[in-house]
Amino acid sequence: MEPTHRFLRACRGLAVDRVPIWLMRQAGRYLPEYRAVRARTDFLGLCKTPELACEVTLQPIDLFGLDAAILFSDILLPLEAMGLPLAFTEDGPTLPEPVRDRAAIARLCVPDAETTMPFVGAAVRQIRAALAGRVPLIGFGGAPFTLAAYAVEGGGSTQWLRGRRLLYEAPQSAHELLGKVARTVAAALIAQVDAGAEAIQLFDSWAGVLAPAEFEAFALRHAAETIAAVKAHADVPVIYFVNGVAPVIDLVRQSGADVIGIDWRVELGEARRRLGSIPVQGNLDPVAMFAPPAKIEAKAAAILRAGGGVGHIFNLGHGILPETPVDNVRALVAAVRSYAP
Amino acid sequence: MEPTHRFLRACRGLAVDRVPIWLMRQAGRYLPEYRAVRARTDFLGLCKTPELACEVTLQPIDLFGLDAAILFSDILLPLEAMGLPLAFTEDGPTLPEPVRDRAAIARLCVPDAETTMPFVGAAVRQIRAALAGRVPLIGFGGAPFTLAAYAVEGGGSTQWLRGRRLLYEAPQSAHELLGKVARTVAAALIAQVDAGAEAIQLFDSWAGVLAPAEFEAFALRHAAETIAAVKAHADVPVIYFVNGVAPVIDLVRQSGADVIGIDWRVELGEARRRLGSIPVQGNLDPVAMFAPPAKIEAKAAAILRAGGGVGHIFNLGHGILPETPVDNVRALVAAVRSYAP
Repeated sequence: MEPTHRFLRACRGLAVDRVPIWLMRQAGRYLPEYRAVRARTDFLGLCKTPELACEVTLQPIDLFGLDAAILFSDILLPLEAMGLPLAFTEDGPTLPEPVRDRAAIARLCVPDAETTMPFVGAAVRQIRAALAGRVPLIGFGGAPFTLAAYAVEGGGSTQWLRGRRLLYEAPQSAHELLGKVARTVAAALIAQVDAGAEAIQLFDSWAGVLAPAEFEAFALRHAAETIAAVKAHADVPVIYFVNGVAPVIDLVRQSGADVIGIDWRVELGEARRRLGSIPVQGNLDPVAMFAPPAKIEAKAAAILRAGGGVGHIFNLGHGILPETPVDNVRALVAAVRSYAP
Repeated sequence: MEPTHRFLRACRGLAVDRVPIWLMRQAGRYLPEYRAVRARTDFLGLCKTPELACEVTLQPIDLFGLDAAILFSDILLPLEAMGLPLAFTEDGPTLPEPVRDRAAIARLCVPDAETTMPFVGAAVRQIRAALAGRVPLIGFGGAPFTLAAYAVEGGGSTQWLRGRRLLYEAPQSAHELLGKVARTVAAALIAQVDAGAEAIQLFDSWAGVLAPAEFEAFALRHAAETIAAVKAHADVPVIYFVNGVAPVIDLVRQSGADVIGIDWRVELGEARRRLGSIPVQGNLDPVAMFAPPAKIEAKAAAILRAGGGVGHIFNLGHGILPETPVDNVRALVAAVRSYAP
């Protein structure tokens, strides 16, 4: 049966009344309403308290009339469920017991999502109830390479050298680690779908640091494994977002995703030419949100023109930045909603 | 007159006996010989003492028989000459008086290179004398956007948000800053050429964070300004290296460079197809240097095959990493030198 909501229709390449828009990290620090909730608990507490996760998930829907909600959570929670302690500091996430040898990889478990992350399913159910059909809910997870890179580094990194070295120095160990992460993330995404998520986005935030051969052999292969498991379970659209996709744009179709997320560094018309008929999502530079509204509107119009109206979901090309002026978000959403080709 | 050395011939797309090889940051921390010299002074002292800069420049030539030497220096020295205090700490470069407003941009001078950086010309002359014609000497500089990004941030950054915001928020100020940097770098490169540098590499290490429209309007435009000034002064080959070139590979020809440096994230055959007949330099993943030698040799052979033998300078796709095993460098150089298609 054809979906009726424009976001889900765009994911399938079906005709829409207008191009849908949502924003990566739309429930986030740029919103005073989010900061007010966040002041009551720490970041992990927010992720793990379904009422609060539900509250912040709905904020940008109520404020801006965006076309999809996305579960408030964090891509690193499944690593904690696999057995890696996880904390968030002012400098970002930290994993104090990083995976540095074969024994550590062997110790990782592939957990049951509903047992180890019950708060995720609970949040999804609450959000679906609160949305009451207004807009679809997107569930999400981190792609295997991105999560494995965090597990190996023990936190964020600029160059992800440990993660990249593993692929060259110990490819079999790398596959073992990536396979475990792929199965864990698949189970977590399936749990989200079972709880009511109507689409899934898989974030490969750091796979863009890889050479194309390593991207294909490691990142793409295991992302495809995760996507195949989700698609075998339920017919939900899957969006695969690789940050820094340009060098591998001819490969990402092989992921099996329904939609390809495009970061801000690719001209969207070029992405469409390279990808053929597969729907795309993106891709305004998050930093463009600091420009005067007239310039934001012109940039959005250029992206909408390049997107061609069908099989295009408007989004930023990466997460919205904490300092983004809320009025500029309003201007962007208004421009996309009123765009007439 | 046609050059005779294979590196300079490859820069012109002329036939060569074999593909030349040099390595970005080849005089660096991975070498015990470099660390021994570095132990005698701090990093800026090494850059500013011609005898020491000469000594470390020659080390990899003597050790590995590479096909070009590159001046030991730092891309940030011209910023210091423009009036910005500069220091190097364990965490990298820091500019304690960053450029944060129009007045700060107005205060920057466009210095005379020989007066403000006499040690650079002196180092070039000493290195040329010490090389005695064995291999050509490459001079280098940072491209305007990359240097402006450092000037605005006050040091290194992962996202370069201040530099990127400037382009959207105050494009005229951005052009003023970039124009001053472009003229400063051009003067510095011309001074290197006058002192004896036989080729120039312009490093746009961070322009890869820009959206294509901003890359073209800001980074590329001012890099082209610098390159045009150098080429108007002397007929030396110029290599333009953009780290993260994939999304803008169809634009970089407009830089006016003779050679395009390709980072490790692009498959070199694809780069050749996109760039047509213009010579290319690259592009082994620096992290591949941690693989067993047999794998390094296979990766190098694949790049040499894709490069096609003419108009190709073998290099890494980014600077060699400090932890790189010296024996693996030896294996790589031997593989490239003995490669027979």
